[in-house]
Amino acid sequence: MKATVFHGKADMRVETVPDPAIAEPTDAIVRVVNAAICGSDLWWYRGLSSATPGQRTGHEFIGVIEETGTGVSHYKRGDIVAAPFNFSDGTCTFCHEGVFNSCEHVGYWGGDNDGGQGQFVRVPFADATLSTIPDAIAHDANKRTSALALTDVMSTGHHGCVRARVERGGTVAVIGDGAVGLCAVLAAKRLGAAHIIAIGHHPSRLEQARAFGATEIVDSKDPDVAAKVIELTKGGAHSVVEAVGGQGPLDLAIQIARPGGFVSFVGIPIGTQNFDARRLFSHNITIGGAVAPAHAYIDELMRDVAAGTLDPSPVFTLRLPLEDAPKGYAAMDDRSAIKVVLDVSPL
Amino acid sequence: MKATVFHGKADMRVETVPDPAIAEPTDAIVRVVNAAICGSDLWWYRGLSSATPGQRTGHEFIGVIEETGTGVSHYKRGDIVAAPFNFSDGTCTFCHEGVFNSCEHVGYWGGDNDGGQGQFVRVPFADATLSTIPDAIAHDANKRTSALALTDVMSTGHHGCVRARVERGGTVAVIGDGAVGLCAVLAAKRLGAAHIIAIGHHPSRLEQARAFGATEIVDSKDPDVAAKVIELTKGGAHSVVEAVGGQGPLDLAIQIARPGGFVSFVGIPIGTQNFDARRLFSHNITIGGAVAPAHAYIDELMRDVAAGTLDPSPVFTLRLPLEDAPKGYAAMDDRSAIKVVLDVSPL
Repeated sequence: MKATVFHGKADMRVETVPDPAIAEPTDAIVRVVNAAICGSDLWWYRGLSSATPGQRTGHEFIGVIEETGTGVSHYKRGDIVAAPFNFSDGTCTFCHEGVFNSCEHVGYWGGDNDGGQGQFVRVPFADATLSTIPDAIAHDANKRTSALALTDVMSTGHHGCVRARVERGGTVAVIGDGAVGLCAVLAAKRLGAAHIIAIGHHPSRLEQARAFGATEIVDSKDPDVAAKVIELTKGGAHSVVEAVGGQGPLDLAIQIARPGGFVSFVGIPIGTQNFDARRLFSHNITIGGAVAPAHAYIDELMRDVAAGTLDPSPVFTLRLPLEDAPKGYAAMDDRSAIKVVLDVSPL
Repeated sequence: MKATVFHGKADMRVETVPDPAIAEPTDAIVRVVNAAICGSDLWWYRGLSSATPGQRTGHEFIGVIEETGTGVSHYKRGDIVAAPFNFSDGTCTFCHEGVFNSCEHVGYWGGDNDGGQGQFVRVPFADATLSTIPDAIAHDANKRTSALALTDVMSTGHHGCVRARVERGGTVAVIGDGAVGLCAVLAAKRLGAAHIIAIGHHPSRLEQARAFGATEIVDSKDPDVAAKVIELTKGGAHSVVEAVGGQGPLDLAIQIARPGGFVSFVGIPIGTQNFDARRLFSHNITIGGAVAPAHAYIDELMRDVAAGTLDPSPVFTLRLPLEDAPKGYAAMDDRSAIKVVLDVSPL
């Protein structure tokens, strides 16, 4: 099969790799219909990750069940499915507690596993990992793209809002106008927030933030960004979703959180970070890390996609065939695309 | 009047200072009956604070209303009251939101305000700040001492549990066997936690932790302390209360928190701290700073003190007259006393 493979900084190649095969009874093989390129994939592309040449890429995909192991009971050949960006066994303590990313057998697509940006993926623990995509979504081009967004970016934006305790009628500040930040805006709107402040510096993306429900825009390059948000919110935002990653955005998130408020950070941190513990202490601010248990959200969000009340598809601004995946990376790297959808095989 | 005054490292003196007087209509003057010495007061004693010679000390006191300003309606001369460790106006946005420590007019006892370790205290915003001590508590020596604990240490332990989302039947780890840690154990028990792990290294204090409800004891000096807690809790504690302060205990708190769990830190941090953001992210752990809005809890906890179902008084292991406050500091500094109660004036 064809799959995208990392070869080094700015060197992604689509090449022939071995076809996957069922290895465990709980496996399924999924033929990928659409895959996406994630902001976190850019770490690889930019040479900022520990990925080694030869590793597979991509962790967002939807597709069709091609084959199932003898232990798979919920899915059969031909079913259309979405995969969250990690697999989990569904049986361990942490899966039962809903923190699927802390599963005792957790694994992520790509690296030494099959990547989403390829023609087939071996999916461990298929029953516990996959979600069904209804036909009405699969056969609607736009809704199918939305379903692809649920595999990571939309679930992550939603999780950021859940972890920042977004409330109906509440005030939310979203730091970052990338795909996750935009999805967080959309999620906040869906959850009923009345005031949604999008903080970023790309005019076209901030325009999309407005279309998704942002009620205010603050320029992240403004040296007074914190003061402006505090003024707009009369003391700070009850909920802050930090969707960039790194020290500066984390610092800003803590600065603009309201006393008694909640910060989530959905950008992947490298390791330790400095937190203004004094402010967290003095103003009873809560901060929570937030890799999304996407599996917990996909069915719920899928219902809204089916109903036409949730449409994150505009975060995909470039569509390419799988063989042009390297062009997709380049377009996201130079910011000409927010997010790329890859057409891998026909439905 | 007599009051305790900071003069420098290990130099606390009880000396004559000006009597306070009503300055604003919302003030009350409280004649102090009992005061306490707090672990955070030791920062001053140890020369680790920014306090300057001449500043007053102490922020925990109960007493009797001596005089009220014309704007005070809820209290009158002779009422017996407890003060939380800060005053707050009761009318600003943040007071309405329950984060009294973030009040626009917040202030703390001691420093340039009257300290609790003195014969009288001018209490700003008396109606909003003070709580009534029922006669049945005031005239019971033990319960009166418990009421004194509500002004800070017990409310802080309780807040640590609230912020760490202690649940009925849940699992809690409390880091620190000082007065606040012990009160957190007692608060966890009161909230119905089934498994309470006390982490410390003072045998007599850990014995008190057992008496307060700890079900397990782990030695904080054991190099495998984190592994032991993780083993005891089969993966980490749902709730962790960090009641020591500083980098090491914070690191431990994050290490022993269960995926999806909650950490509160009630020890005062100096400024920024390193947080293992990667672990917070990867395992959806939440951490919250936690200066206690004691005013929000005093009435609720006072009812349990009155009913005899809450007795934090054992954290006070030494009783001294006000004039011996310096001896009290020395006893807490050398760990011979957990916490000191000062008899300031008769009821």
